[in-house]
Formats: sequence, C-alpha cells, structure tokens
Amino acid sequence: MPSRMLAEIAEQPEALRRTFAALLPRIGELEALAAGARQVLFIARGSSDNAAVYGQYLCSARAGRLTTLAAPSLATAYHATLDLRGVLAVAISQSGATEEIVTTLTWARGCGARTVAITNVPGSPLAAAADLTLLTQAGPEQAVPATKTYTTQLAAVAMLATALGRGSGDMDPELEALARVPEAVEGMLELGPAAGRLAERLVGTETLVVSGRGFAYSTALEVALKLKETCYLTAVGLSYADLVHGPIAIVDTGTPALLVAAADGPMLPDMTALARRIAETGADVYGIGGDPTFAAACQAALPGPSLPEYLAPFALVVPGQLLAEALARAKGIDPDAPRGLRKVTQTGS
Amino acid sequence: MPSRMLAEIAEQPEALRRTFAALLPRIGELEALAAGARQVLFIARGSSDNAAVYGQYLCSARAGRLTTLAAPSLATAYHATLDLRGVLAVAISQSGATEEIVTTLTWARGCGARTVAITNVPGSPLAAAADLTLLTQAGPEQAVPATKTYTTQLAAVAMLATALGRGSGDMDPELEALARVPEAVEGMLELGPAAGRLAERLVGTETLVVSGRGFAYSTALEVALKLKETCYLTAVGLSYADLVHGPIAIVDTGTPALLVAAADGPMLPDMTALARRIAETGADVYGIGGDPTFAAACQAALPGPSLPEYLAPFALVVPGQLLAEALARAKGIDPDAPRGLRKVTQTGS
Repeated sequence: MPSRMLAEIAEQPEALRRTFAALLPRIGELEALAAGARQVLFIARGSSDNAAVYGQYLCSARAGRLTTLAAPSLATAYHATLDLRGVLAVAISQSGATEEIVTTLTWARGCGARTVAITNVPGSPLAAAADLTLLTQAGPEQAVPATKTYTTQLAAVAMLATALGRGSGDMDPELEALARVPEAVEGMLELGPAAGRLAERLVGTETLVVSGRGFAYSTALEVALKLKETCYLTAVGLSYADLVHGPIAIVDTGTPALLVAAADGPMLPDMTALARRIAETGADVYGIGGDPTFAAACQAALPGPSLPEYLAPFALVVPGQLLAEALARAKGIDPDAPRGLRKVTQTGS
Repeated sequence: MPSRMLAEIAEQPEALRRTFAALLPRIGELEALAAGARQVLFIARGSSDNAAVYGQYLCSARAGRLTTLAAPSLATAYHATLDLRGVLAVAISQSGATEEIVTTLTWARGCGARTVAITNVPGSPLAAAADLTLLTQAGPEQAVPATKTYTTQLAAVAMLATALGRGSGDMDPELEALARVPEAVEGMLELGPAAGRLAERLVGTETLVVSGRGFAYSTALEVALKLKETCYLTAVGLSYADLVHGPIAIVDTGTPALLVAAADGPMLPDMTALARRIAETGADVYGIGGDPTFAAACQAALPGPSLPEYLAPFALVVPGQLLAEALARAKGIDPDAPRGLRKVTQTGS
C-alpha cells in the first residue's frame, strides 16, 4: 500500500495552486501592512524554520529587508524587552498550535512589531494572535513528516516577499514566475523510481551530510530534517561555508554527502567544485538538481527543476522528500509514523 | 608530548585576563558607537559564528537589541541592497583575513551600518575595514582547532553587550561579574583526567548529538564543531527545540547525546528532563555542567562552572575542548592538525 507521505508529496502541485490562488487577492493587504516595515523577523521551528530560512534569503536578496530568524527562547524563557517598531514579525506553524510560536508572536506584537501568521489551520491560536493571517491550502496532512504543508509555506513566504519588494519595481514578472512553480513541482514527481534507486544505495548509510548554498541552503536543511525524522539517519544539514570551514573532515568513505543545487545562479560553480573535492577524498557524493556538469561530478544525481534559482527550492525539495519516503520503506520504517515524533510539538517543559 | 591544543586550552584564563584588561578602557568608545544603534548584525563563520550565537543571546536578552546573524552570501553572492542605518554590524574573525567576512563587513558599512571588528590580528584586513576594532589578546594560536581565540571572542562580545546595555542600568555589576570569568575557566582545567575517561567511553562512537538551550546553545554548537573538526565524529549540534521537534529519533543505542547546561537559569529543568527522556530510550546520555540533579540524570557528566547562566558559556566550553583533545589522541589523530582544515579559510571558489 502506498504511504500517506507519498500521496501527500504527490498532492503538492494542487496544494500550491490552491495556495497561490487564495493568497493572490491578499497582495494589497500585505503591501499595506508591509509599508514602512524596515525589517522582517521570522518565528518558526522544525520544517517551518527551514521555510523561514528560505524567507530570509527572499526577503533580503529580493525585497531588500534585513531579515532575522528569532530564537523563541528569548521571548519564552528570557522575556527580552526589544524595540520591534518597524519590524514585520512573521510566525510560521502548520498547526498554528505550537505554544512557543504563539507566545513569541504575541511577545513580538507587544514589543511593537506588526504581525503575520502563516498557518494551515484557520481559527488556530496563531491565526488569532496575528494582525494578518496567510492560510496555506495544503489540506489535512496525515503523515507525520511535513511535505505539502512545507511547500505551501514557501508559497506564502514568496507572496509576502513579493509584496514587500513591490516598492522596488513591477510585481507582475514576479507573480508570473510564481505561477510556473506548481508545474515544475509536478515534473519532479516522475523521479520516484530514480529516488528509489538512490535509496537502495543509501540503505546501509548511518550518517550523511546534506549541503547547499544560498537559496538552496534552506532545501538542504529540509532534506536533512526529512531524512533524520523519517529514516533515523544522522543527517547533518550544513551550509557550504560551514562545510568547507571545518567539518568537511567528517565526510569520508563512511559518510557520504548529498549536495543540493539550483540549475543556475552564483552558487552552482562552487557546488560543482565541492562535489569534485568530496569525490577526490574517496567519499560518495550524490546530488539533487544542478546542471549536467554538476550531475557529472556526482556519483548519482536526481535532476532538479528549470526554475530560476530563487524559486528552485519549491521543486528541489521534492526529490529529497521522495528519497526520504523510499529510504524509510527500504529500511522497514513506516514513513507515515516514525518514532519519537508527534504532529504538533511543544518545546516547553 | 602534550599537544599544542592542550597547551592553548590551558592558556585561556591568562588570555581572557589580557583581553578584558585591554578592552575595558574601550567601553566609552563602544558606548559612543552604540548610541542609537537599534540593532546588531553579527558576521562570522565557524567557531566565530558560535561566538556570534552567544552574542545574539547576550545582545538580545541582556542589552535589549534585536540581533541578527548575517548570511554572508547575501552580500558576497547576491549583492543584496539593504537599509542598515541604525544597525551595528559586528564581524568576528580570528585571523581577520577571511575574505568573505571582510567583504560582508565592507558591504554592511556601504549599506549604512556602523562597524566593529573582533579579531586577534592587529592590522588585519578586517581591522582595517571597521570603524572600531576590538583586539582579542589570545596570542598566536598554533593548533588548528580554535580554543583560546574562541573564548577571547566571547570576552569581546560580552564587553560589547555590556556597553550596549549601559542605557538600561548600572554597568558596574556586569563588569564585576565578567572579572570572575577567568578564574572560573581556570577551575575547568582540572577536568583533564575526567575528560580523558569520557573520551575512552566515546572512542568507538561515530555519531553524537550535542545539544543545549538558551545561552548554552552556543556552547553545544562549539563543542559539536570541535568534535567534528578534531575527532572526525559526525557530531550534530542541535538546539533543544530542534531536537525535541523531530530529530530525537536519531538518538538511539548507536548515537549517544551530549547535553550542555548551565548551573542555573530557566533552561536547566528542561535539560534535565531531556537527559532522562533520552536515557529512557536506552541511548547513552552524557552531560557537561548543570547541577547535581542534571548530572545524576546522565550516565557520566563533567561538572561546569558556578557562573551565572549568561556567563557560563565561557567555562562550559572548556570540558568540551578537553574532551575533543583527549578523544582525538585516543583515536590516533593529531589534535593540532586534523585533516581537511586550514587556519585561515576562504569560502569562495
């Protein structure tokens, strides 16, 4: 029987179409809220935090806003008093019920921030706590590992960045580019068999380093998290820089690397060089995305989308999701309900 | 023959005394530069980035400034245009020669930020690029893994946070508390034999999860990095929240956990509960710091300092450094020159 996780991976193109359609009419509202916001503060945990990392790159590189990832314990444990006037605080939580995320957004509002909630659950506590709510349209997610709720969070984050960036130019090309995303994600679904073959190669692997750079860094973190949660791999998500600044020593014959790259952009040459460098050490190196030169530098690679680099994370994550699902099954793990995980998590004691 | 790394670990109390003495007269200058700075932006990589994580907690929780960790590629690869007026940009680099850190600080200055360099090398390119330089007084560091340059970076960050926080109260108690740090670090040096015994228990371990929460999170990241660099362990540094939000599934009989906790503060009960929860799964759990209840929940624990939570990271890292040094030797690795590492790293291609 196919897993729920696999079915939910396949639902992503439709979930993205619904989410874009639902959020497009909110652009004006978002623009009004964003007017005068000098800065963005993301509040999130787990997969949602990986969506926030994508948001950090989008809001900085594409919308010109200094963007911060919050440490929720500053609010929940240390009760820091910050001046957040002029800050747009954006909390991301699938369930909208993770207590520390709600508490941190409420704290941000008390410190003077304008607040946005990105959640999949209307009427959730997080939605109630925000000035404006962007509802993702993933529908109910039954498998424990987040897939369609993650990619629809990326959609909400991208709409937000588009509204924030409006001041700097015409928004229409941005929206047209976003409209191509669901089809690109659909194209990735054909990679199931190839992901299954890569899973067979990784079935004896206990530790794996997953790395990406720039926009694809968020995807590397999310793929590492999926592999950790779903396959009990010690999958270390590392930025390219952190990998070459030291821990590359951990990549060896027993620890393969999985590199994630977009098909274009300034990071691709470095990622290709990194693949070659790792291969030279005798370690196994696998790839997701990139161009043919990148793929040739890897022992095996799952192709990525032909989306511009800043949108590639929507589709690059899909081969990683398929890999995690296939690898879990190959290891005899139920991908829908791996041990030690609940759907709504609370960090507090 | 004792390693250079071990000798440099032992030099830390003196290096800290020199650094505090050198930076104390700069408080007025720092205050003037910080006046009106609404926000702090740290720019760093590797060990220096772990010092920046400590700085994020200090500057937020103790000095009331929203604090951001920069993604240098936003400057170096994406050439983002941000409005950084009112932002204090603080770059940290031992050598002051890491090109992307210099480039990112220069970029921040061009975007309107006031700039500070924290470096161990006078006249380095980073020092030349900043409005104000805080020189750490670690002296030359010959072992590749950073130890005394890391803790003296913490000292510079703490002086900066003290100056930033002056507006909110009397600074004298803060400075008196800092003055107790070198002695507390000295006390940790007696843990060599205990660290050696823990290293013997870990000699067959290939993967390890290192976790901490709040101020001690920065220490967990740094201890994980030391173990990765020096011992070729796949050591995953995870925040408490990220651990309980999923990847706790990776902690099992083959993957022990090393938990780092201060002796007091709001995080200690949660860290103790986490130690018990991990032990219940049958996995090995080791500790650094905490109180007797925390230590009792671990199979073995290296004691930490009796410093207040916000200063504990200065001393909590020392048992971790000793452990990394001892474990490298136990595995037949030269701790002074592990493979794949250079002293000055460049991230670019």
